[in-house]
Amino acid sequence: MKEMTRVALDAMGGDNAPGATCEGAVLAVSERDDLFVYLVGQKEKIQKELSKYDYPKDRIEIVPASEEIGMAEPPVAAIRSKKDSSIVVGMKMLKDQRADGFVSAGSTGAVLVGGQLLAGRISGVRRSPLAPLIPTEKGFSLLIDCGANVDARPEDLVQFAQMGSIYMENCIGVSNPKVAIVNIGAEEEKGNALVKKAFPLLKECQNIHFTGSIEARDIPKGDADVIVCEAFTGNVILKLYEGFASTLLSVVKKGLMSSFRSRIGGAPMLGLRGLVVKTHGSSQAVEIKNSIIQCIAFKEDDISGKIQQCFSHES
Amino acid sequence: MKEMTRVALDAMGGDNAPGATCEGAVLAVSERDDLFVYLVGQKEKIQKELSKYDYPKDRIEIVPASEEIGMAEPPVAAIRSKKDSSIVVGMKMLKDQRADGFVSAGSTGAVLVGGQLLAGRISGVRRSPLAPLIPTEKGFSLLIDCGANVDARPEDLVQFAQMGSIYMENCIGVSNPKVAIVNIGAEEEKGNALVKKAFPLLKECQNIHFTGSIEARDIPKGDADVIVCEAFTGNVILKLYEGFASTLLSVVKKGLMSSFRSRIGGAPMLGLRGLVVKTHGSSQAVEIKNSIIQCIAFKEDDISGKIQQCFSHES
Repeated sequence: MKEMTRVALDAMGGDNAPGATCEGAVLAVSERDDLFVYLVGQKEKIQKELSKYDYPKDRIEIVPASEEIGMAEPPVAAIRSKKDSSIVVGMKMLKDQRADGFVSAGSTGAVLVGGQLLAGRISGVRRSPLAPLIPTEKGFSLLIDCGANVDARPEDLVQFAQMGSIYMENCIGVSNPKVAIVNIGAEEEKGNALVKKAFPLLKECQNIHFTGSIEARDIPKGDADVIVCEAFTGNVILKLYEGFASTLLSVVKKGLMSSFRSRIGGAPMLGLRGLVVKTHGSSQAVEIKNSIIQCIAFKEDDISGKIQQCFSHES
Repeated sequence: MKEMTRVALDAMGGDNAPGATCEGAVLAVSERDDLFVYLVGQKEKIQKELSKYDYPKDRIEIVPASEEIGMAEPPVAAIRSKKDSSIVVGMKMLKDQRADGFVSAGSTGAVLVGGQLLAGRISGVRRSPLAPLIPTEKGFSLLIDCGANVDARPEDLVQFAQMGSIYMENCIGVSNPKVAIVNIGAEEEKGNALVKKAFPLLKECQNIHFTGSIEARDIPKGDADVIVCEAFTGNVILKLYEGFASTLLSVVKKGLMSSFRSRIGGAPMLGLRGLVVKTHGSSQAVEIKNSIIQCIAFKEDDISGKIQQCFSHES
């Protein structure tokens, strides 16, 4: 018998929940028979949605969670006070190893805080970065870190490079992924204090393929597979990408962005004990489904184990 | 008699020099009779170019400078060693008040270093930011700072906001320009250490119209007239704009960017005794001309005086 990947899905998270989340779960278990989905959230609402579908009933289970965390709630307070929310309950399943992955289209802040406070980091990992794939001319690049933990240290950027490389190599199938650091010039002496300190550390790092600096203008060209930066910078890049997509590009391009998202799934939060996937708030069922299926490769390729091994000397 | 604006033009700077620079100077003095242009550079080459045109000869003068600073030269070393380069000679004219403005399409690094080391800052000004206008849905916004001085302090960002407001109000004609700080969320408590410290200072600042944080996704919408950020972030935003223009947008859009540049001129470096304009390395004559003409409004509206007055209590 195949080993199952067990994914806890935040059934209440996102603009289209619980409709899109329940449908996504049904699509996922129908597509893959090595998958078990826990729908975490309000039982009656979930039951009502599930009743619309025909699906393998032995591979979807409802895990009750009565509370919801709103998109605008302060994340730390919400995670601390709403113990019976779908995000808190789901993250605890990850921690207790009842689930291999947790997928949410809910509040990014709450997912990031919950991941750190509840799921816990792999030993040796100092920060768990959020690392979305962004579209480029050549395909897509992993932009790491776009999370909420700003003002990283140089050593953190090296860990981002290592974790990002492991993810791109194993989950996305890019062999020997090229790693570059976001900088304001190509020369080694360029950069702010953080980049200047991180650069030589990245250069020395043996288990990545570091190619040097990347200027923001070259990011859309796809010159690097793993784009390392501190979270403030990563957020600026990611959101400017979104801004261009919605403002300057045509409807066709917008369609591409959203089909890209549907195809790929959400953004992994790396370095945690188990995979946390943050998918877009406006996710429809297909995107939810792909985010769930993303967890299978993560488990099969033992990404957490590889990250742990990579940092074992640091723990 | 009208008061003349005297502009020193780096005749040797840029990909198309000295052809485009000399032609730009001719176009500028032909268009405006309150303009005097010093062409700084290699006399014989300049004379050869000028001989192609018919122009008011009493308003163009060659100022000899035998050396050139290459695009790839380390800026500080180049400015220190090449005393007879067009950038060094031109900047000194600014310092000695022989010129009101200096325009260059040459090495950005050398212009920035030269501006700081040679032209000198207005008293009270701690940093002289480079502030290009970037196209938005509504027109354009001033992105300040995109220069080479990274790791600014919170107080520096406040000065950027003030100088940028003065420039947008007086030179571009935006009344009561809206100022926003680049941040990773709309809430006041968001941000890295720098933004968190700068935010309350900007809020208290009486002589600007501060509207709070702007997320990068909203920059292309044109929600703010003056977009304040530290130079590393500014460079990332500016270059991602360029990257999108050249990669994702169609040839039509590229044409818009370049016609936009031609119409507006180059990026002002603010806070110096006199205006330094850095125009694009690939500038053609019309863009050079408009960068020169930009200096007139700067002088007429006494931008340096207004900046000095703004910071007089800090000197």
